[in-house]
Amino acid sequence: MTEHFSTIVIGAGSGGMTVAIGLAGLGRKVALIEGNHVGGDCTNVGCVPSKTLIHLAKNFKPGMNADEVLQEVICKRDALRDKETEDIKHLENLTFVRGMAKFIAPKRLSLTQDGISRELTADNIVIATGSRPRLLDIPGLPDEMVLTNESLFDLRNAPKHLVIVGAGVIALEMAFAFQKIGTRVTMFALDRRPLMTAIPEASEVMQAELERRGITLYCGTVAKACDVSTRTLTLQSGNEEIVLHDVDKVLVAVGRVRNLESLELEQAGVMVDPKLGILVNSYGETNVKGVFPIGDVTPTSAFTHSANAQGRRVTQRIAFPYLPLAKKEPLFPNATFSDPEVATVGLTQMELEEKYHPQLIKRIRVDFKDHTDRGYTDSIENGFIIVDAIRLTGQVLHATIVGPYASEMISFFTLAMSQKISLHKIYRLVYPYPTFSSGILKVADFFMRATLPDLGKELAAYLKYRFAKPTKEERKK
Amino acid sequence: MTEHFSTIVIGAGSGGMTVAIGLAGLGRKVALIEGNHVGGDCTNVGCVPSKTLIHLAKNFKPGMNADEVLQEVICKRDALRDKETEDIKHLENLTFVRGMAKFIAPKRLSLTQDGISRELTADNIVIATGSRPRLLDIPGLPDEMVLTNESLFDLRNAPKHLVIVGAGVIALEMAFAFQKIGTRVTMFALDRRPLMTAIPEASEVMQAELERRGITLYCGTVAKACDVSTRTLTLQSGNEEIVLHDVDKVLVAVGRVRNLESLELEQAGVMVDPKLGILVNSYGETNVKGVFPIGDVTPTSAFTHSANAQGRRVTQRIAFPYLPLAKKEPLFPNATFSDPEVATVGLTQMELEEKYHPQLIKRIRVDFKDHTDRGYTDSIENGFIIVDAIRLTGQVLHATIVGPYASEMISFFTLAMSQKISLHKIYRLVYPYPTFSSGILKVADFFMRATLPDLGKELAAYLKYRFAKPTKEERKK
Repeated sequence: MTEHFSTIVIGAGSGGMTVAIGLAGLGRKVALIEGNHVGGDCTNVGCVPSKTLIHLAKNFKPGMNADEVLQEVICKRDALRDKETEDIKHLENLTFVRGMAKFIAPKRLSLTQDGISRELTADNIVIATGSRPRLLDIPGLPDEMVLTNESLFDLRNAPKHLVIVGAGVIALEMAFAFQKIGTRVTMFALDRRPLMTAIPEASEVMQAELERRGITLYCGTVAKACDVSTRTLTLQSGNEEIVLHDVDKVLVAVGRVRNLESLELEQAGVMVDPKLGILVNSYGETNVKGVFPIGDVTPTSAFTHSANAQGRRVTQRIAFPYLPLAKKEPLFPNATFSDPEVATVGLTQMELEEKYHPQLIKRIRVDFKDHTDRGYTDSIENGFIIVDAIRLTGQVLHATIVGPYASEMISFFTLAMSQKISLHKIYRLVYPYPTFSSGILKVADFFMRATLPDLGKELAAYLKYRFAKPTKEERKK
Repeated sequence: MTEHFSTIVIGAGSGGMTVAIGLAGLGRKVALIEGNHVGGDCTNVGCVPSKTLIHLAKNFKPGMNADEVLQEVICKRDALRDKETEDIKHLENLTFVRGMAKFIAPKRLSLTQDGISRELTADNIVIATGSRPRLLDIPGLPDEMVLTNESLFDLRNAPKHLVIVGAGVIALEMAFAFQKIGTRVTMFALDRRPLMTAIPEASEVMQAELERRGITLYCGTVAKACDVSTRTLTLQSGNEEIVLHDVDKVLVAVGRVRNLESLELEQAGVMVDPKLGILVNSYGETNVKGVFPIGDVTPTSAFTHSANAQGRRVTQRIAFPYLPLAKKEPLFPNATFSDPEVATVGLTQMELEEKYHPQLIKRIRVDFKDHTDRGYTDSIENGFIIVDAIRLTGQVLHATIVGPYASEMISFFTLAMSQKISLHKIYRLVYPYPTFSSGILKVADFFMRATLPDLGKELAAYLKYRFAKPTKEERKK
């Protein structure tokens, strides 16, 4: 039995649903295949339950019950999952298929469900199978003590002592949230600093804020063994041994593995890099015409919003192939919902160093505590806006915000950078007082003060270093 | 004794300090005159203490002491005031003068302090005397029961029952804050709805959120009398009489009066409109060359940030008269720090109706509850983004956000409107998930869906109504 579709989407996560619902709404015959829960990581084991927990934890007050908080997280997650699952089944032009798909040819999939095999063919196939948590082998650690983001939000009792392995986005978000609902949290990671993907200044704030809340983070540290009878976990940091006592649960958040193996992509001839994922050109196309990956399986997207953005691009490409597509992916901001939040957009530190001579860049830092009145009224100790801009022109290349609502503020810079709006223009805007975003005015103000008094020098440096590639030594500075 | 300065600034509030410090920093000889506290309303009786209170109230937990909260507000306010007062005295080129100034000629002021009279002259005079609360005469209400924003932040004991007269920005901010620290709050106002300056949809949310917190607001209501012996306040609403019992304090927040009388502006020949304040052209100049008003005394600024923005314009005009000045004032956003916050930028409802034919405008509304996942995870009941844009072109004319952090999100629209970035371009941006600001994407998405399917119709309507003035009847629709 072979069925043909205009488009098959493999994976009913956030990105996959964007494409499937979008194309079905445009009248295309779509099949959406899912082997697990509709909604994918975001709805089931990611953003939705984690942000619900973070919200409830923020409003946790003495005398409240942490188990009830976890219960509410489960309720909200299940309600949304049920709604999405029902919705998807009643969409015109969309066929929902349960099962695990594998390629048997470039545009042909095979699928087995309840012992029945089917073959599906399509003009376009969208791969949106996402990722799963990387696991860790700790000698002596029993399965029932291990949590990942996939099991975390089924917890019905708040652990007394939660050990978190990792210091990235998920690890930090959960550390702050569980600490707030009364759990003792200890973290360790191989990384040299928390939130390695961000600039070191952001890591410094994370470090300080973890300490302020009594959360210990051991960096450059690995697990050696667990003794379940005494509930101790032994860590190794250089020559030093660290013993953690009374450990209830261990949350492993040390990165993600792409869900690619079961797809048998080699049958379709789709090129995959073991480190980067499914390889694509700047239009998001694989080497096989009509096969598009989106979300975690691609080299450039690790977030729901970037998966959705890729999904919208693929939807346009499939539905309106004659319309011009932007040559590059749009800017993907990212946000960590720690406390304070960390949000970033633009070039990473490494990309900056590779692409631009250090003399061409001005880095401006505005601290909420010292430079904004809102930092004063709200007693903010740590937090800042850091912007890297090209000297003279004021073109923004990178912005990182660490502070309350950073995830909401960052879109200002996404807009400014996408539209190439310089700091000179940003300087002329008026920002409500007293807000954290009035710190953006300070950024522009500091930039003007640093460059205006000696425009001749600025112009000379700009002309000299505009196209200069930094040497290795200059980069180190 | 006559002293001459490059510039005299009357009033050491936020706007006045911006000019005085700015010009002194540029090497100009400046006199800054203040009859009361340095820092003006903002530091002493406005934004700083009110936002400190709002912040502490948000984090108020059962078992905490409300009086200690008020004490901390006073401490933080006093510390900032002392710092600003000290700072101002040690600035190069700046002479700080205590006293009340009055004009005796266009560029000549007289000033009496401790019985000594002085005359000051200057090339430029900046009037930044601000405003004071409008008072209300309620028969039988003793002075010791009356509060305004000028006495509110000297309170050392939280009232058990606070009655607030007015339903504007200050009234609403204080209602939500005092309710949170355990005060019973009752409000009444002559206005038909809370926050009359905002669109009616914002008032609806305010009304719902006040009710949810047990704060009663009587609209279209005036005070008749107070009986201090029984601590009752009798109100009149149409034919109905309302009696409020156990009233501790009455906060009067029914608008502002400009501080102009003592200046004797007629001696300088500066034109003043009794309703609008000191009259200025679009460059912010009065009819007398070299005399500039900023802040509350002008027709267009009622906020600290707009006073500062005007101050920066005047500073540029005085320091660099040869540089071109923008023909119009920049866009002034505004924010009310109620719960949820309300933030607005662009044309008011009335300006929209006067300038544009209703058929030319598309109003898009995105509700956080129904249209964003963050609204779901954070259990938001009320709140939205409303945008008015020109059909076809997608040029944004007005945006109102009601929701958490609205004051931080609004700058996105200030930037988009200032730089004439259409909703078509805003549609292409990527917003972190799950945030409230991802609602901005929904706004653009809804706009595209509403206009794209029938571009011919959109174009026809655009061409027909582009320059059409609405008739009175059309406006009513």
